Amino acid sequence: MAGILELTQSSRTRRSPFYDATIAAGATGFSVYNKMLLPTYYDTPVADYWSLVTGVTMWDVAVERQIEITGPDAHRLVTLMTPRNLSTMQIGQCKYVPLCDERGGLVNDPVLLRLDDDQFWLSIADADVRLWAMGLASGFGLDVRITEPDVSPLAVQGPLADEVAATLLGEWVRELKFFRFRPFDLDGIPLIVARSGWSKQGGFELYLRDGHRAGELWRRVESAGQAWGIRPGAPSSIERIEGGLLSYGNDMTLDHNPFEVGLGRYCDLDQDAEILSLPALREIAERGVERHQIGVVVDGPPIAGNGSWWPLTTADGRRVGDATSVAHSPRLEQNIGLAIVANDAAEPGTTVTVETGDDARRATVTSLPFIN
Amino acid sequence: MAGILELTQSSRTRRSPFYDATIAAGATGFSVYNKMLLPTYYDTPVADYWSLVTGVTMWDVAVERQIEITGPDAHRLVTLMTPRNLSTMQIGQCKYVPLCDERGGLVNDPVLLRLDDDQFWLSIADADVRLWAMGLASGFGLDVRITEPDVSPLAVQGPLADEVAATLLGEWVRELKFFRFRPFDLDGIPLIVARSGWSKQGGFELYLRDGHRAGELWRRVESAGQAWGIRPGAPSSIERIEGGLLSYGNDMTLDHNPFEVGLGRYCDLDQDAEILSLPALREIAERGVERHQIGVVVDGPPIAGNGSWWPLTTADGRRVGDATSVAHSPRLEQNIGLAIVANDAAEPGTTVTVETGDDARRATVTSLPFIN
Repeated sequence: MAGILELTQSSRTRRSPFYDATIAAGATGFSVYNKMLLPTYYDTPVADYWSLVTGVTMWDVAVERQIEITGPDAHRLVTLMTPRNLSTMQIGQCKYVPLCDERGGLVNDPVLLRLDDDQFWLSIADADVRLWAMGLASGFGLDVRITEPDVSPLAVQGPLADEVAATLLGEWVRELKFFRFRPFDLDGIPLIVARSGWSKQGGFELYLRDGHRAGELWRRVESAGQAWGIRPGAPSSIERIEGGLLSYGNDMTLDHNPFEVGLGRYCDLDQDAEILSLPALREIAERGVERHQIGVVVDGPPIAGNGSWWPLTTADGRRVGDATSVAHSPRLEQNIGLAIVANDAAEPGTTVTVETGDDARRATVTSLPFIN
Repeated sequence: MAGILELTQSSRTRRSPFYDATIAAGATGFSVYNKMLLPTYYDTPVADYWSLVTGVTMWDVAVERQIEITGPDAHRLVTLMTPRNLSTMQIGQCKYVPLCDERGGLVNDPVLLRLDDDQFWLSIADADVRLWAMGLASGFGLDVRITEPDVSPLAVQGPLADEVAATLLGEWVRELKFFRFRPFDLDGIPLIVARSGWSKQGGFELYLRDGHRAGELWRRVESAGQAWGIRPGAPSSIERIEGGLLSYGNDMTLDHNPFEVGLGRYCDLDQDAEILSLPALREIAERGVERHQIGVVVDGPPIAGNGSWWPLTTADGRRVGDATSVAHSPRLEQNIGLAIVANDAAEPGTTVTVETGDDARRATVTSLPFIN
């Protein structure tokens, strides 16, 4: 198979405002996410992982594009899009909101921020949520404005994130609760500061509201973090698999519903509101799902995902599902993965065979998360 | 600035069914397009270009994902999406259809194929047209089914494409008219054969309807093409800039309307049909646009785009627009580019300065295309 693939750049796959800073900091691997370049690692994925779980790291996650919805019908539109109950959502609050279509299929799983009564941001995973929102707004005749504002998140993640954030922003950040945010002016650099981030290590996301200040913000974070040994980093597929965090497009798609991927707890089926997916999700909840997400521990030497789902079969040769994301966990010293399998193969302890493309390995079904 | 960026793979950025064949054929550069890997070059971009313009090349363009729309309201939905007149579109016909939102902004510029009265494929450029279509269908309450079928286009492009296609498929393909297609069974490999493709060199797109046959189809094309010197290739940014072909996401976005980027001829403003963008486009046509697309010839040594738009200024220091795609044309022995500039700087012969990131160069405005 292929060795290293070289990424051809074009303005269609837009650079983040932090791009120059990430290159200067030694970003080596990149992916494309929401049609933007996403740094994936600096040193090695394993070295970056250790920095994240033992210290503190800073991530260019400008690829978390913000879709801003404003106007008199803004709350009605975001309510239409998600089965999560938004009726009491407060200004300054973040909510993880699976978005579902009329069949209950997952369109995306963004974080929703309420900036004002009639102003929301969807901090999106990899898909054009803006186009879906535009289609819905046109069809339902909603009075909204849907735009992509100049916002670029920079994440500070790791056990020492509070120290860095307090050094940079002040002691007040220690009091900021999980999934709450506050606007903050850092000597003229306009930020929204949220306690959030796509890791289980804790930390903050600094939503930079002026792309021209990106280099400056990067250096300020770097400098505030120096005493704490901050390292450049990126969302770690190892750490997020350990923690059971899902990646839209990897672990779930439009062909999955929330109940199949452990997101049932975000579906409030007893709401009165007009929600696109509610009838379908009630029906699915009633009849149950036929497959669902579990963990797998894969035997053999350390392994990493190679960009494809890996088929899972039982001893009798029956195809029962796929491993969707796999990595070697340095802390568990095991190969671990997320998988979606038929209910009758999902019992912890079940033995399955994984086809990795290179070989076939034995794997054991287990519950999630691997590390809490 | 950065040297080579290494592309990190994940199943979120899906491999094409032709992936193994393209790697075996020596694909070196890749981009991500519609969340799939797109080979961008094999030998060098310039060597691949010469193969395309003087011989014949075969391209994995499975990234042109097909969005299938079927059902009683299928024609109504596709009509809603584009200002192009679809009232007389025939089965077996392809049409280039700019898609526009309510403000007249460009959502995408796919090729539409009509497979049956109530069955259409949108062969899309880089954006989730499926989500927009889903939103519209939900909101307008349309009776349609919107899916992504198992279809993977393989393009055969270049002056010798007819020879290769006739060898592979039979003499009948020579009679196939431009932008017409026919289903064809190649010894059990199910195809839709269209005379189309994203170059000005002529050729075909073979829409493979069973991804499992991808390796086989690749080898059949390779073998039929051997006598004609076929080479693996990819959409060439040099050739398409020479020919004035637009790239969605590079040369136009949601912030541009068709009149600004030379697509006014596809807008039929006198239609009676229900079309989302028609009121806005009529208003824009009435008041005129303030900027539009032109060509630029850039002085100095050979140059290539680096992944960003390049600002254009006039002698008095006024910012008048951006060069959106730039390449060195081996046939013209000039640096050429597409640009969008204010009307008063768009007169052929106007001199502007281009900021390339590395230097500032003189450029001259010219009409399009560079090569007809």
